[in-house]
Amino acid sequence: MAALDTVLQKIDANLDESLGRLFKLISIKSVSTDPAFKGDCAQAAEWVAGELKSLGFEASVRPTEGHAMVVAEAKAARADAPHFLFYGHYDVQPPDPLDLWETPPFEPRLADTPTGKQIIGRGVADDKGQLMTFIEALRAFKETGELPCRITILLEGEEETGSPSLPGFLEKNKAELKADLALVCDTGMWDRATPAITTMLRGLVLEEVVIKGADRDLHSGMFGGPAINPIRVLSRIIADLHDEHGRVTLPGFYDGVAELPDDIAEQWRNLPFSTDTFLGDVGLSVPAGEQGRSALEMLWSRPTCDVNGINGGYTAKGSKTVLPAEASAKFSFRLVGEQDPEKIAAAFREFVRARLPADCTAEFLSHGASSALQLPFSSDALTRARAALQDEWGKEPVLAGCGGSIPIVGSFKHDLGMDTLMIGFGLEDDRIHSPNEKYDLSSFHKGTRSWARVLSALAA
Amino acid sequence: MAALDTVLQKIDANLDESLGRLFKLISIKSVSTDPAFKGDCAQAAEWVAGELKSLGFEASVRPTEGHAMVVAEAKAARADAPHFLFYGHYDVQPPDPLDLWETPPFEPRLADTPTGKQIIGRGVADDKGQLMTFIEALRAFKETGELPCRITILLEGEEETGSPSLPGFLEKNKAELKADLALVCDTGMWDRATPAITTMLRGLVLEEVVIKGADRDLHSGMFGGPAINPIRVLSRIIADLHDEHGRVTLPGFYDGVAELPDDIAEQWRNLPFSTDTFLGDVGLSVPAGEQGRSALEMLWSRPTCDVNGINGGYTAKGSKTVLPAEASAKFSFRLVGEQDPEKIAAAFREFVRARLPADCTAEFLSHGASSALQLPFSSDALTRARAALQDEWGKEPVLAGCGGSIPIVGSFKHDLGMDTLMIGFGLEDDRIHSPNEKYDLSSFHKGTRSWARVLSALAA
Repeated sequence: MAALDTVLQKIDANLDESLGRLFKLISIKSVSTDPAFKGDCAQAAEWVAGELKSLGFEASVRPTEGHAMVVAEAKAARADAPHFLFYGHYDVQPPDPLDLWETPPFEPRLADTPTGKQIIGRGVADDKGQLMTFIEALRAFKETGELPCRITILLEGEEETGSPSLPGFLEKNKAELKADLALVCDTGMWDRATPAITTMLRGLVLEEVVIKGADRDLHSGMFGGPAINPIRVLSRIIADLHDEHGRVTLPGFYDGVAELPDDIAEQWRNLPFSTDTFLGDVGLSVPAGEQGRSALEMLWSRPTCDVNGINGGYTAKGSKTVLPAEASAKFSFRLVGEQDPEKIAAAFREFVRARLPADCTAEFLSHGASSALQLPFSSDALTRARAALQDEWGKEPVLAGCGGSIPIVGSFKHDLGMDTLMIGFGLEDDRIHSPNEKYDLSSFHKGTRSWARVLSALAA
Repeated sequence: MAALDTVLQKIDANLDESLGRLFKLISIKSVSTDPAFKGDCAQAAEWVAGELKSLGFEASVRPTEGHAMVVAEAKAARADAPHFLFYGHYDVQPPDPLDLWETPPFEPRLADTPTGKQIIGRGVADDKGQLMTFIEALRAFKETGELPCRITILLEGEEETGSPSLPGFLEKNKAELKADLALVCDTGMWDRATPAITTMLRGLVLEEVVIKGADRDLHSGMFGGPAINPIRVLSRIIADLHDEHGRVTLPGFYDGVAELPDDIAEQWRNLPFSTDTFLGDVGLSVPAGEQGRSALEMLWSRPTCDVNGINGGYTAKGSKTVLPAEASAKFSFRLVGEQDPEKIAAAFREFVRARLPADCTAEFLSHGASSALQLPFSSDALTRARAALQDEWGKEPVLAGCGGSIPIVGSFKHDLGMDTLMIGFGLEDDRIHSPNEKYDLSSFHKGTRSWARVLSALAA
């Protein structure tokens, strides 16, 4: 532990300089969505590559059809040390609306607030501050000795535009980028005092169905009664998709959905999470969904089936007495655990077909299917990272789920065969994508210390 | 019957001249929807008023904010004769698309076809030929003696534009227009050989509901599970509105729905109506709707509940993982018999409210409510008209229902307190509103004879 202590002391001593480097990166206007900032994006890539070179990394800026990738690699002191791929992005959202910023978005500053010092600037939480916690931790290792692990770094400049170049880049550079485990910093803490490791991302199956009846729209006076109405057929299907307990009725839907381990369930039960506040913030008060499950479970570890859109017949102002020829709806299934996206899409289509009355047909469109991602609770890396974060924060880190998806984690799993350890220090009030984006100074400082501890633990 | 025979002979003898007058009326381009034809509409009104004056009617053209009304009245020979209000319209649909007409739309002609002679021209079936059957019958009475009944005639020039001036005109001229019974000729025969009297028009209740949940659209990853989804709530309500036998489940919905008298039910059962053809024409094969009811019953004498439109969430191309804040649907209820539109609208709203889960609200919009209209099967006028039509056609007239509504009949009932006897000689293949609109010469000739018989029977 003596070596780690030296690294942590170095991080503390470096803090002002670390902040200076972060400020420099924030001041580069790397807005990826606006072609006017193409040069700034290139400058940000060059600057980070230069930083990494100064730490002894073999770093290069790799052009793509869009904004460049930065790839860097450094060996560890020990040849048998584990190898990690760290992912981050150097591009940021546009700063608009500018008039809502208290100070210019690309002129970062420190602000004193009742909850502590904050760094203010576009991109500080998403993702420049977060990625610099990792790089500053590496710097402290380098300035006090050697890296404990072999590290490859991949930074993209298109995250805010949907990462169009990333899949092809991963495919082409598989051998270089494949490591024992990926590290992703694009996530958050549970709260200002409690770190979190995101171990579960829900998967997603997107299906659209069009139910067709008569070969044209019909007059409800001339045909109402004997003619089938596709809206009614579709509504019955939607109603049938859940039972009275809020469970999805697709046969086999819950295959591969495991109950939480007792210790995780216990941790979640004891988290200070207010369902009232969570729902109250959007005008709701009572959890819908599966009976007997907490709101956190529903979001993090339980699958769902939802209708995202429905359309049929006359929907403009007033009335039109039409029996429509067709009606359509878009469905999303959030998956967890080992649920098989293809089986679920097939079960859904079978479920719909089984409910089609005479004269109705169904057309299906798939808008994508991805399985859930889970870092096994028994993973050795997870156990080490939990202990490392506990050491830094003095609190057990929350093993969180994430209701949505993080596409890069799916790519790492499916294209490179790697699990991902997701640790980040963002807070819910960071105003990412909004004016006056901030990152707590404690997130930056203790985040950097956290990475030092985590890398040290993973290498031990 | 001697007097009636004379009238019928006169009609036969007059046929060529009657046709000449109809051709003259058709040649006036009284297109009410296009301001360019305002003068033609006025000319048509003047021409019909002139015709009626020449028959001894006290006739006048009454200006409105739109196109003029023609009102005419003539006394009967006997002071105690019954009084009828005849309604028709002199305006026609635009003739477009012109290039699909075989001959110019306002240059009427006779055509020989395998099913007999046809009169071709815009508006010949809707409604100029039909109204001229009535006027030509009156002419034959006048040319051979006196009218058997007191007759008031109301012809409007705005039927094809939704009759905007009519309600106000009826209200203002109640005393003048109120009669014992209204006669409306805007309907059809069962088939080329079989006359029909339309005795039932379904009513209509139009309701729209908006189901609201959260106070904004939510991300289905962030909220999917605990947050209520208004599309699902709405779909369940729609599914609940019918039971497994196709019956509407609104409490009290069937109050006031009577079974058909045995003789009418028997007549309908024996009608040569092909459900296969009726549904096959629009790409369907199996009657949906109430089990155990024939398609004709469903259309003419049974009430329905249908969804005419539904909308919620993301409905453009592709997918969006949104939980929408609201979803809406438009409903139409077709009513029969004594069903009370207000009670049904109220029952619907109560039904929806009873199915709202916590955190959901419903907003309702009414787009109109009208009760069904029925000329009682026991009506003396109906009995007489049935016999008169049987005499002319040698076949029992079909006592038909009509799935849609004819607003003027509702106005006569509710504003003037009159039932309506609906007799017309249109055929399904008349191509109304379409190029090459036609009216069978037999419809015109035997229609005129039919009115002579009906008026004679009603006066007896």
